[in-house]
Amino acid sequence: MKKTSFPTPQDCEAAFYEALEAANLEAMMEVWADDEEVVCVHPGWPRLCGYEQIRENWAQIFRSGERLKVHLSAQVCVQGMMLAVHSLHENILVAGEPKAQAPVVTTNVYLRSASGWRMVVHHGSIAPQAAPADPEPPSKSLH
Amino acid sequence: MKKTSFPTPQDCEAAFYEALEAANLEAMMEVWADDEEVVCVHPGWPRLCGYEQIRENWAQIFRSGERLKVHLSAQVCVQGMMLAVHSLHENILVAGEPKAQAPVVTTNVYLRSASGWRMVVHHGSIAPQAAPADPEPPSKSLH
Repeated sequence: MKKTSFPTPQDCEAAFYEALEAANLEAMMEVWADDEEVVCVHPGWPRLCGYEQIRENWAQIFRSGERLKVHLSAQVCVQGMMLAVHSLHENILVAGEPKAQAPVVTTNVYLRSASGWRMVVHHGSIAPQAAPADPEPPSKSLH
Repeated sequence: MKKTSFPTPQDCEAAFYEALEAANLEAMMEVWADDEEVVCVHPGWPRLCGYEQIRENWAQIFRSGERLKVHLSAQVCVQGMMLAVHSLHENILVAGEPKAQAPVVTTNVYLRSASGWRMVVHHGSIAPQAAPADPEPPSKSLH
């Protein structure tokens, strides 16, 4: 049973990155739709399908003890009544490492449910470099 | 001005892969929404934004002369009234090469417009291997 209601896709997205930075499994799984038709792709990993498989994966990631800071940029959003799609760059800093890694190009998809918006797709892949015409602003930082 | 109207996201997706296999630029650009807020990510490439940038990129790809056959599998679909999200594996065979490459994990997003469904996001990235619990059927072949 979900305890949190996210009134907008942006609220859901903010909660996703807060849970990721805090390595908080319960908070992370509040963000996801409790469904078989949810998909998570980390850079260079096989696709994960379904709430339980995705939960196990995040549990494993958070157990590793690695802590991340994520700065979001270059957001492009397409929103309907029931579905919202956010394309963005995740600029990730690993705690203890001085330099940010190459940005992760990410597609996040949110679905409106009876209890507010939930994540149904998180697809991230490594971008070797910014495209020449890639718009940097608008940007959004979690900090 | 768009000439084709795609009555469903599936029609739009079929047209995308037919245009890709035929290396037909005009057919490919019929599929895309003519908008600044469209996004294309090829495996290992920077993100491309906007109809014109995406058109130039496909023109460049098709000029290379490489011909591809794409077999789709492991489709997961989430559909709303105005937006549809398809997650799938592209199993790509390059003409003249005997063996399929590693599958491309792909998120395709379609938006309903006045003239039918159009693609607004194509995000592909290399999957090193199938996940253990990855459902193989239902699958859909273009051939």
